[in-house]
Amino acid sequence: MPLPESSHYIPHLAYDSVVFGFSKGKLKILVMEYHDTGLFALPGGFVRKNENLDDAVKRGLFERTGLKEIYLEQVHLFGDINRFDPAIMKRILEANGYSVPENYWMLDRFFSIAYYALIDWEKVTLKPDTLSDSIGWYEIDQLPDLIFDHKEIVNKALLTLRENLDKKLIGGNLLPEKFTMNELQSVYEAILGQKIRRTSFQRKMLSLDILDRHEKLFTGKSHKAPYLYSFKST
Amino acid sequence: MPLPESSHYIPHLAYDSVVFGFSKGKLKILVMEYHDTGLFALPGGFVRKNENLDDAVKRGLFERTGLKEIYLEQVHLFGDINRFDPAIMKRILEANGYSVPENYWMLDRFFSIAYYALIDWEKVTLKPDTLSDSIGWYEIDQLPDLIFDHKEIVNKALLTLRENLDKKLIGGNLLPEKFTMNELQSVYEAILGQKIRRTSFQRKMLSLDILDRHEKLFTGKSHKAPYLYSFKST
Repeated sequence: MPLPESSHYIPHLAYDSVVFGFSKGKLKILVMEYHDTGLFALPGGFVRKNENLDDAVKRGLFERTGLKEIYLEQVHLFGDINRFDPAIMKRILEANGYSVPENYWMLDRFFSIAYYALIDWEKVTLKPDTLSDSIGWYEIDQLPDLIFDHKEIVNKALLTLRENLDKKLIGGNLLPEKFTMNELQSVYEAILGQKIRRTSFQRKMLSLDILDRHEKLFTGKSHKAPYLYSFKST
Repeated sequence: MPLPESSHYIPHLAYDSVVFGFSKGKLKILVMEYHDTGLFALPGGFVRKNENLDDAVKRGLFERTGLKEIYLEQVHLFGDINRFDPAIMKRILEANGYSVPENYWMLDRFFSIAYYALIDWEKVTLKPDTLSDSIGWYEIDQLPDLIFDHKEIVNKALLTLRENLDKKLIGGNLLPEKFTMNELQSVYEAILGQKIRRTSFQRKMLSLDILDRHEKLFTGKSHKAPYLYSFKST
């Protein structure tokens, strides 16, 4: 594959996405490892000249996760001069066998618009992109070193997610369609990084009138089975 | 003055600022009118190639208001293809006597990063920029038609301001250093677009432990004078 041409993309502008998933009580994000460099980064990309910004981000996430409908929120445009390091970009391209012309557009100063995405872990089929060996889930408190200011982007995304948690009732995007109250509480605890009292959490969630309660699943010990809930469609 | 050269600025990226002020019980924003066009717009500008994004926005606001220390928050990057209209930009430049080359960089597709600013109305000295006749305060529910998607930018900024109001305790940035409880309540009411009960507002503000109370100003009817408050320095 040839090097991407500058004429197809908006120069100086990249996007980076912090893709949150939830599994086994832990909040995790997607991280890519570039070929033969030991460099880790958030999944990101560029905006085509004839493409809306949001569509570019959705395209990138679809290519890596196979998901078309993804809950997305914009976080912040990172625009300091020193956030970008052309030497790192050059190293990534060269490790992939490209010979990089001087003044190549991907070595210019880049702004990055950060998004976070919330996805149901079970629905994802991960696929590395052409420059990377692997894409995988990492617990947010056990991330490898990330290139550029990507750690700062993760922190800002997590902060924004926490601020939005109650306001936008978005916790459900990390769960399958039906879930127990305990599972929902685990999502909140993982995002907030702290334990919540079970009774007050349950009371608060029920008072918001946002959940539908479903029949219990009958099993051998059905008297103990918890109720399943889903978010009311809006 | 010659047309700004593309080599000095980041292409495709503008900023627009929604500058909130508060006067006579009303929330207002700054709007510019371009020379001989009848076109109104938010104050905005471009980012120099060697300039941090935040510094570009501060520079633009300083040039228009004379203020160096301004409370600023990023709102959103607007990136739809159709948001920008090169014919309008051309009209503005031509009305200012420029002959605009085809393919001139200011006619390209533009992303706009929106900020809101909160300023103390009393401290401002307004100054139109080189392309505009006037810059003035408009009540947010009595804005003139604005170019491009600037009305949408105002709405998004106002929404973000409302969401941030309690979280970031920023109402004080719209007031002089010392203010009465009534004045603070008026700011909240103007931002939220609704009346608040006096007693519960006062109780809430005092419970947050964020205000210093000062001596009453003694006047002829000093027994009726309200207390003055200021925000505790952080």
